Amino acid sequence: MNAEIIAVGSELLLGQISNTNALYISKVLSNIGINVFYHTAVGDNRNRILDVLNIAFKRSDLIVLTGGLGPTLDDLTKETLAEFLDLNMYIDDQSVNTIEKYMEQRGRPVTAGNLKQAIFPQGALILPNEHGTAPGAIIKKFDKIYVILPGPPFELKPMFEKYCLPYLADYGEDRIVSRTLNIYGMGESLIEEKIKDLLIHQSNPTIATLAGYGDVKLRLTVKCNRYDEPEAWFKPLESEIRCRLGSFIYGTDDDTLENVVTSLLGKNSLTLSIAESCTGGLISDLLTNIPGISKNLIESLVVYSNESKITRLHVKETTLETYGAVSEQTAIEMCKGIKELSRSNIGLAVTGIAGPDGGTDLKPVGLVYTAIAYGHDNLQVQKHQLIGDRKRIKKTAANIALNLLRLALIEN
Amino acid sequence: MNAEIIAVGSELLLGQISNTNALYISKVLSNIGINVFYHTAVGDNRNRILDVLNIAFKRSDLIVLTGGLGPTLDDLTKETLAEFLDLNMYIDDQSVNTIEKYMEQRGRPVTAGNLKQAIFPQGALILPNEHGTAPGAIIKKFDKIYVILPGPPFELKPMFEKYCLPYLADYGEDRIVSRTLNIYGMGESLIEEKIKDLLIHQSNPTIATLAGYGDVKLRLTVKCNRYDEPEAWFKPLESEIRCRLGSFIYGTDDDTLENVVTSLLGKNSLTLSIAESCTGGLISDLLTNIPGISKNLIESLVVYSNESKITRLHVKETTLETYGAVSEQTAIEMCKGIKELSRSNIGLAVTGIAGPDGGTDLKPVGLVYTAIAYGHDNLQVQKHQLIGDRKRIKKTAANIALNLLRLALIEN
Repeated sequence: MNAEIIAVGSELLLGQISNTNALYISKVLSNIGINVFYHTAVGDNRNRILDVLNIAFKRSDLIVLTGGLGPTLDDLTKETLAEFLDLNMYIDDQSVNTIEKYMEQRGRPVTAGNLKQAIFPQGALILPNEHGTAPGAIIKKFDKIYVILPGPPFELKPMFEKYCLPYLADYGEDRIVSRTLNIYGMGESLIEEKIKDLLIHQSNPTIATLAGYGDVKLRLTVKCNRYDEPEAWFKPLESEIRCRLGSFIYGTDDDTLENVVTSLLGKNSLTLSIAESCTGGLISDLLTNIPGISKNLIESLVVYSNESKITRLHVKETTLETYGAVSEQTAIEMCKGIKELSRSNIGLAVTGIAGPDGGTDLKPVGLVYTAIAYGHDNLQVQKHQLIGDRKRIKKTAANIALNLLRLALIEN
Repeated sequence: MNAEIIAVGSELLLGQISNTNALYISKVLSNIGINVFYHTAVGDNRNRILDVLNIAFKRSDLIVLTGGLGPTLDDLTKETLAEFLDLNMYIDDQSVNTIEKYMEQRGRPVTAGNLKQAIFPQGALILPNEHGTAPGAIIKKFDKIYVILPGPPFELKPMFEKYCLPYLADYGEDRIVSRTLNIYGMGESLIEEKIKDLLIHQSNPTIATLAGYGDVKLRLTVKCNRYDEPEAWFKPLESEIRCRLGSFIYGTDDDTLENVVTSLLGKNSLTLSIAESCTGGLISDLLTNIPGISKNLIESLVVYSNESKITRLHVKETTLETYGAVSEQTAIEMCKGIKELSRSNIGLAVTGIAGPDGGTDLKPVGLVYTAIAYGHDNLQVQKHQLIGDRKRIKKTAANIALNLLRLALIEN
């Protein structure tokens, strides 16, 4: 079964809201083996909605429409679909009751617009809305299935999961399941060199590469029978790739550097303290998004001023004067200082120039030093020349530091 | 001129990434008076891309294609468009040079895949990529304009703004321009009460409300001639709303609490230091995203452990024992401590329980204290009970703290 998702709403085309519904529905449908081949967004305009329905009719078996079910006159989805399918509209009494109760509970009056939300094309299977006034619907005609869903994601998602998914689950054929291998420290093209033969001979699973802030993801996608266990399909290829890329692979799927690091710190009962200059608290923010980090993170100091570097970390004034705040020497003193003063097992430090100002010929914007001190006298420092705007430099520098920490945790 | 945006990439249809490029491009095109009538997403599949190009050709004058310019074999956008337009491909020497330099600067080898990124349909106007290896292009044929842009947003946006927008600006007709008024500290329904009459009689500009992490945005949208100055259309309504909502409005459009605060600190030449516990560096990260903050931010300490609160901020052990780390008393000592020890004009502190663990009946997850100390003996402390998951609690707490700082800066 081939599906497409049509989002109705001029606000999408004006760039006022993002089409997150398409993202959500696509993921859920893929997992039950329904292929989504197209997303479309169209404005609140009868003729253009009719055109889009016509195109969808020719190429898709399942057509999911989102949005345009509101109480106002520019909400046209149901009306236009009824016209397209040549169906009359009727008032669904049960929906009228539900809407009246919903509004009464909130002490709001029922408007004519709300009652418009209870009107449906003949033959529709109504999908109750437990978080708003617009019910959804499923309509079958000419061997096609049309699903109508409300636009607000907090109304759409529970309705889809509770009432729509059980209906659609029987239509899934092959499942499409993906697994990503998350890689740090090796560029996209070098990765492709290393697995070139696997890329050329890929079939099932297929392999795709996606680049991010210094990290690369390899997405393996399996098409298998809906009763198959996808793990068996992934295993041989995944093992081969792991063999070639080794510890450059830091995790799978939703794993992030910060949750991998948090789990390694936890397993080894190690304490960490961080001294951030150019990343300005981002490393610490990322780590503290992970529950449980409080057992291992002692403190993180954003030593933005020279004064703070001296007072808080005991970086020597002469070091700052001789080599500057952005230098290998300062990075080393920062990570040694934070480790010792906080009495942590590991000290991690970043200093750099995030820009847009502050760069010179010798020290351009994007110059970043990361350093780590652990155990008795293990010390590593790295120099990087990063590109991009301020936020991107911060994000890339944070990832580099987290990866440095990850490798130190693996190796020791 | 009617436009449509076609995003190429199977990852969109599998629900793996969101089509934020369509959002961005739509907004920018609306602002220069180009109507976007459709968004489409299609997978990395030659036949389906050809079908979509065929549909677009019949209904749109400007066709913007995003994604599918990567170095790998499944990146098909340029090749398929060339086939559709019956154009030969050629190697653009200048792009080859740029890509070679780009890779050289990063110490990475140039692969055959990278060179594929320098191949274009005949007659293409090349759009340089200053943040990656895939150049974009503009192609005119059969009275249609085709724009090809790379998929990663941090490559696409600067390319679009610098090289594409100037080219397209002459094609706009009526403009649709929006301005948002950004509000903090007043709920959506109370705002609607205060401007009820304006909402009922809205026409041009129209008014829409959007809720976020404790903040609310009022979006005013004007439709005017491309030679009109939209300011004149916004002014009367905006003045009336400002009159009613006063200092709850913290800025307009892309203004964030952090850049408003940074600019207020700069104007008043005040220094700031921060002690974060539950927000874990997020406040500092947000502030350090703003260029120029380094003049005013002395330091920010993420005092995650009790030990760190005592050593770094001189919070009393008895305070922590008697009242706990999440208490009014600790918040006060944290903000006084950071202000005095860093010798800053202002000290800002947050302590709270971000969850999911660590809550009790008396101190549930989401309990957050924010405190600010400024000048000689001005002190404010606030208690909040927030809802949501760990990230949402962190984000809301950070916004509350930044707004507390903003109001203190306005009032003093």
